[in-house]
Amino acid sequence: MSTLEKKPAELSIKPASTDKNKRGNINPETMKALVYGGPGKIELKEIPRPHIEKPTDALVKVLKTTICGTDLGILHGKTPSVKPGTTLGHEGVGVIENVGSAVRSFKVGDHVIISCITADGTCEYCKKQMYSHCEDGGWILGHLINGTQAENVRIPHADNSLHLIPPGADEEALVMLSDILPTGFEIGVIAGQVQPGDTIAIVGAGPIGMAALLTAQFYSPAKIYMIDLDDNRLEMATKFGATHTINSGNEDAVKRMLADTKDGVDVAIEAVGIPATFDICQKIVRPGGHVANIGVHGKPVDLQIQNLWIQNITITMGLVNTNTTPMLLKTVSSGKLEPNKLITHHFKLDEILKAYEVFGNAGKEKAMKVIITN
Amino acid sequence: MSTLEKKPAELSIKPASTDKNKRGNINPETMKALVYGGPGKIELKEIPRPHIEKPTDALVKVLKTTICGTDLGILHGKTPSVKPGTTLGHEGVGVIENVGSAVRSFKVGDHVIISCITADGTCEYCKKQMYSHCEDGGWILGHLINGTQAENVRIPHADNSLHLIPPGADEEALVMLSDILPTGFEIGVIAGQVQPGDTIAIVGAGPIGMAALLTAQFYSPAKIYMIDLDDNRLEMATKFGATHTINSGNEDAVKRMLADTKDGVDVAIEAVGIPATFDICQKIVRPGGHVANIGVHGKPVDLQIQNLWIQNITITMGLVNTNTTPMLLKTVSSGKLEPNKLITHHFKLDEILKAYEVFGNAGKEKAMKVIITN
Amino acid sequence: MSTLEKKPAELSIKPASTDKNKRGNINPETMKALVYGGPGKIELKEIPRPHIEKPTDALVKVLKTTICGTDLGILHGKTPSVKPGTTLGHEGVGVIENVGSAVRSFKVGDHVIISCITADGTCEYCKKQMYSHCEDGGWILGHLINGTQAENVRIPHADNSLHLIPPGADEEALVMLSDILPTGFEIGVIAGQVQPGDTIAIVGAGPIGMAALLTAQFYSPAKIYMIDLDDNRLEMATKFGATHTINSGNEDAVKRMLADTKDGVDVAIEAVGIPATFDICQKIVRPGGHVANIGVHGKPVDLQIQNLWIQNITITMGLVNTNTTPMLLKTVSSGKLEPNKLITHHFKLDEILKAYEVFGNAGKEKAMKVIITN
Amino acid sequence: MSTLEKKPAELSIKPASTDKNKRGNINPETMKALVYGGPGKIELKEIPRPHIEKPTDALVKVLKTTICGTDLGILHGKTPSVKPGTTLGHEGVGVIENVGSAVRSFKVGDHVIISCITADGTCEYCKKQMYSHCEDGGWILGHLINGTQAENVRIPHADNSLHLIPPGADEEALVMLSDILPTGFEIGVIAGQVQPGDTIAIVGAGPIGMAALLTAQFYSPAKIYMIDLDDNRLEMATKFGATHTINSGNEDAVKRMLADTKDGVDVAIEAVGIPATFDICQKIVRPGGHVANIGVHGKPVDLQIQNLWIQNITITMGLVNTNTTPMLLKTVSSGKLEPNKLITHHFKLDEILKAYEVFGNAGKEKAMKVIITN
Repeated sequence: MSTLEKKPAELSIKPASTDKNKRGNINPETMKALVYGGPGKIELKEIPRPHIEKPTDALVKVLKTTICGTDLGILHGKTPSVKPGTTLGHEGVGVIENVGSAVRSFKVGDHVIISCITADGTCEYCKKQMYSHCEDGGWILGHLINGTQAENVRIPHADNSLHLIPPGADEEALVMLSDILPTGFEIGVIAGQVQPGDTIAIVGAGPIGMAALLTAQFYSPAKIYMIDLDDNRLEMATKFGATHTINSGNEDAVKRMLADTKDGVDVAIEAVGIPATFDICQKIVRPGGHVANIGVHGKPVDLQIQNLWIQNITITMGLVNTNTTPMLLKTVSSGKLEPNKLITHHFKLDEILKAYEVFGNAGKEKAMKVIITN
Repeated sequence: MSTLEKKPAELSIKPASTDKNKRGNINPETMKALVYGGPGKIELKEIPRPHIEKPTDALVKVLKTTICGTDLGILHGKTPSVKPGTTLGHEGVGVIENVGSAVRSFKVGDHVIISCITADGTCEYCKKQMYSHCEDGGWILGHLINGTQAENVRIPHADNSLHLIPPGADEEALVMLSDILPTGFEIGVIAGQVQPGDTIAIVGAGPIGMAALLTAQFYSPAKIYMIDLDDNRLEMATKFGATHTINSGNEDAVKRMLADTKDGVDVAIEAVGIPATFDICQKIVRPGGHVANIGVHGKPVDLQIQNLWIQNITITMGLVNTNTTPMLLKTVSSGKLEPNKLITHHFKLDEILKAYEVFGNAGKEKAMKVIITN
Repeated sequence: MSTLEKKPAELSIKPASTDKNKRGNINPETMKALVYGGPGKIELKEIPRPHIEKPTDALVKVLKTTICGTDLGILHGKTPSVKPGTTLGHEGVGVIENVGSAVRSFKVGDHVIISCITADGTCEYCKKQMYSHCEDGGWILGHLINGTQAENVRIPHADNSLHLIPPGADEEALVMLSDILPTGFEIGVIAGQVQPGDTIAIVGAGPIGMAALLTAQFYSPAKIYMIDLDDNRLEMATKFGATHTINSGNEDAVKRMLADTKDGVDVAIEAVGIPATFDICQKIVRPGGHVANIGVHGKPVDLQIQNLWIQNITITMGLVNTNTTPMLLKTVSSGKLEPNKLITHHFKLDEILKAYEVFGNAGKEKAMKVIITN
Repeated sequence: MSTLEKKPAELSIKPASTDKNKRGNINPETMKALVYGGPGKIELKEIPRPHIEKPTDALVKVLKTTICGTDLGILHGKTPSVKPGTTLGHEGVGVIENVGSAVRSFKVGDHVIISCITADGTCEYCKKQMYSHCEDGGWILGHLINGTQAENVRIPHADNSLHLIPPGADEEALVMLSDILPTGFEIGVIAGQVQPGDTIAIVGAGPIGMAALLTAQFYSPAKIYMIDLDDNRLEMATKFGATHTINSGNEDAVKRMLADTKDGVDVAIEAVGIPATFDICQKIVRPGGHVANIGVHGKPVDLQIQNLWIQNITITMGLVNTNTTPMLLKTVSSGKLEPNKLITHHFKLDEILKAYEVFGNAGKEKAMKVIITN
């Protein structure tokens, strides 16, 4: 899922109500979890531990999780499908504590990446690798069922929703493979069909834009422009491989791009989710080019089809399928991709409310991705 | 180019001012041509015959031409890039009367299809088969230079802008290969990635929608819905292979499509060019599906990206490249495609103003494509 | 799997040893099955009925099955991986009698197509839709485990190895979707990248060649040549849509093809599995063309790479994945594909040895596919 | 074109017979050229300077050229289509001295890369970007017409057969874009469909194998194995980005590859052109993998189709189209590709016989590509 980089405004974030006496001991019946309480409200509280409900479930002890822009969106009430009482979080790595009778690929003790997408592996969509639209899955973790910002999480359809971590891997880095990197790669880079020698632009230097930036380099584009309002993030983008940066608060990004390129960019990747950034993309794409939208949008955009109908462009958009996670794992193992670059802050699960504050003020805090350790 | 199916309202269409005495004799200096005179004005008049200007030119005697929805659009003043004094028309078949010194593929006497797209064959876009954006061509005939609604036409870059007609072919039918069939095929069917077994919908049963209908069947979709307001055209669509039709004036097309399909169509082809028809397409496309826009739009459309961002859809649009014309010729030769189905009316060049009237009132006249014989 | 069209020579085929007294009554413990007894030996005998062994299994009562060229190959001792005692058959339709606890997509009473390929849906290959190489499946039915030429069959990984039959379908016709049609389509037509307007050749007019012929027409090739030694089969091919036939016993197929085409065919589909037919394919493919091998080969072929290295050709080969079965089902439902055309003979399960005789003498018997009803 | 890395044996290489008195002065009538004299014979001699013959020709003063493995093949009599008296060479950079009347993209004084492939830009193959099979071009330079190992060369169809050198470029490096880099890229890497995270093997560490090695990295494979008999070349390969090397003289490459990988490589690139190296490729490719043959073969190979038919593999082969040269130029400009790495030796045109000796003994001389300056 993509980022919604807004300030959390005046949110009522309650400190954890957990009984201090229990700290340090594992309560076999309950656990700490970051629970959504309705718009503006999240709380770290004790809830019942999950257990195996179906033969295809796995029970995972969460070792590391993180916060996604989508979680901030939920907190701001933008995702009414999340019911109060739901544990948030759809990313993380962990260790298997129990598996249902039909789980064949994983066993107790396996270290795994938790995919943000749950896939039953048998429906019409899964058979096309469109796990995002799985008829008994898709994005449900921390959305329709309890998620990963907790001590434990139940993972339905474990065989198709977890990925074994190879021995010796940097597990913290692999938290980035739950969502952010496959999203930037699949929905930005692959859908946008980045090619060697291309000139591309990424609009939005938040985590998802950075994920697109890192993975776009798999295909050796000649020039990568990063466009954002935050100089700190643009500087970070340069370190991550952007060849050019534009602070669109200081100059007209469209004008600059059209001046810098012959007739626009080959690929424009939208990584914010608001009309203004979509508009930049549609104005800088060249004939025959691609606009790949990753941003989660809350309202319609004006498609300038009176100009674009003749331009032979392709516009794509979508939720991550995570079908590239095995490929990404190989690129991490080989050192072609260094996901830990994205991690700027660390917290313990007890400090998760603080983590939300920092991540919610990402600009001021110079935060990209935060790691929460259980 | 796609259709603009509007009524020509109150247009000032002047009868030809050609000197009657010349009729029957070929004047070596002048010829009849349908000349644009500014918004609402066209005239059949004598103008100087064209001649070879560059070594890559060919001079073609037009045998048959037709009128495109785009020509009506010009007449209605929607294409200000067309200057008064321009001969209209970008479709036709003819016979070569002269070639420049660098023309290698054609000789005097060859019968040819005139492509609506002129391609120099050497620029960056041509080398990618994106002839629509040729740096010294693209859509220029009857637009930026004199076109085919005349006795003769000069064809720049003849080697890449004409197609040899095989002996014994039905030349009249091949007029449909100048524009309408490659447009429906490339921008509708190929860009929309129609697959065997698919359920597709075509919105707009004008010539371009019919072209998409005929060529979509190359890929054996299971169900083809045709949506239009005109029962006569819907009936024609059924004869051409539509498996279902919807008169969107009588029922809610979106509601019907969503009721008839599990979760929408695999491919929605927009063949009108107005917000209402684009809107139908974006509302009936299924997750993972394609919206292929062929329509020429005059204003922006509201893209419902707040709903669609998560739907993994692809939206395409563009001007025809005519790179499939050789393929289409083979399908015509083999009887897989019968372009003459689209032809409803015949006129002589002298009657071209009448032809514009009929084509401009296509609904009432039950007209699809009209043939004008020189 | 592809065909091995050889005569079954002097095979020891024993009549069924089933106890006559049991006829008419269903024995709950045992059932009739066609059991391989080693090279040259098959027998219809009573064996224990299968039962659910794993939570992902389904137990299917076989309603209709058929014999594949591959089964003849086994009988001739060409597939040593088949152990004596194995029930043959990997095709059929049936009704679900029982399901394991983890089966989610099917329930008792469902009518299903049995795919010749078993897929666990979770391994690396399944996640790429390469079910043919499933790490816990692939072609195992009637090969490594008991198959479908029996009253009942146990289907492992039922959720990914069966396909629900839509109500009202012609179930007998759908037996062709177990193997023969997806094989011809995936390994011949799709791998060969048949395009509208193409000239293609299919070498071998047995069941698999006919399956390629029927499904190639999904993509509207202009010309389809069928090459075989059997005039009856060539005549049948003409009825099925071949535009040209060549009896390669009567004339030099390579010479004829090169004379008929400008510089060879766009796609050559090998549907026999012997060096001579592969050789025809490599000699008739044009520059830039495709050779799609479906044939099951028993020995190496001479690849004329000293001529072909410069020809920009692509050669493909492989076992069916059956990932197109849902697509094929849609084409059957819509009438674009009529699988029952392939069925020439009918037998009861009690007559299966006779069916083997007929199918093993397909030329003389004018047999294509035989249906065996339980 | 690919390499034929054989020792030039006992060749009769005659020193140039040019009149010493003329040295230093440009003779307007004649020029030095490396002329093929039949098997085993090449001579640097004075021949008439070329001139514009057709309106589409350009006359180029050769600034830098090189020797290809294919040139060695000609010298060894392996290419009988080359007639004695032909000037060899199909690579180089130069400056335009004259253009025909129909040349539109280049003017006198332009610095250009000479493509090894001549393309008329209008034939059926050119319209598909298969310039290799251009009906009035293809590989003709230094083959069917005089080539680039001379002071001047006539380039037919200049508009589609030359590439403008951007100002400030390292022209010497760009000689590698005439043939070797597009060949390795198009026929090895693109045809082989190298993907991020893949494990690939390149068999043959000559210039063409190195070109595949450099350009394969555009797609970020995880592991690149280079297999050769020459330790010096393997060391060079490591510097160029190979992650693993195998000296197949010291160990069984097939055994090692199968031990190192789970079930073979994703892509095996053949860059030698003999049965033994093709055989390695077909034995190390995994199910679903690709064998991309670049090598120029002189005899058939045994295709182990009795094992491979079931493996779902794709085998490709072909002559370079050079349609990726513009893309490669962008990757050079951006520093993603450093072609000059391949250059090991420099000679003047007067020393070209020495250059042939060195390149013909590449192993001993530790030569990769040699530059010959005019």
